[in-house]
Amino acid sequence: MLRLYTQTLGFRQIYRETIEDQGVEAVGLAAGDSVIELLRPLSEDSPIARYRGEADSRLHHTAYRVDDLRAELARLKGAGVRLIDESPRKGAHGNLIAFLHPKSTGGVLIELCQRPVSV
Amino acid sequence: MLRLYTQTLGFRQIYRETIEDQGVEAVGLAAGDSVIELLRPLSEDSPIARYRGEADSRLHHTAYRVDDLRAELARLKGAGVRLIDESPRKGAHGNLIAFLHPKSTGGVLIELCQRPVSV
Repeated sequence: MLRLYTQTLGFRQIYRETIEDQGVEAVGLAAGDSVIELLRPLSEDSPIARYRGEADSRLHHTAYRVDDLRAELARLKGAGVRLIDESPRKGAHGNLIAFLHPKSTGGVLIELCQRPVSV
Repeated sequence: MLRLYTQTLGFRQIYRETIEDQGVEAVGLAAGDSVIELLRPLSEDSPIARYRGEADSRLHHTAYRVDDLRAELARLKGAGVRLIDESPRKGAHGNLIAFLHPKSTGGVLIELCQRPVSV
């Protein structure tokens, strides 16, 4: 998949790192001001591997950048949106991230992320 | 879903149109220089409805903008990528679009699109 995206489709790799506590290796590819993230499960019992199932690959979630993740989570909670993460946690590439609960988003997993201050 | 994305999450709607030959209504939402497109099947036997199955909603595909779709399709075909659309066809919002074959993309559907010249 990485060869497809970089060599054939021409995307530029901007990071590659292992996120042990989520059981994945992540590669970020630049697509305009968006990022495509390819995730590889580190073992067959990682949540990403279970989600993929028998498929070679699957679309897993979408993530949207916000300026102030903590404030955004409070606002959404106030609006009645269920949250998986009540407060920000660390994601790939130094981002702070939080997932909304699929029960509140029609079954599709949505992540919010905030870039590290230094970037 | 549209209320979630516009009212709760705050995305701005940039188009809403019916694409009869694909059996969908499409709403485009601005997300930086990307577009989130919500698709609603016009009937239960539209391909989108079959893809969704029992779920409330599902991620369907990703689309990447190119400057010259015809040239890009020729280049990819030369590189051995299978194409669903050998030549560009009309998509939502005046775009020219073409789908790559999932057999060549790890099972995840990828669309290429070219903006209309007038935009």
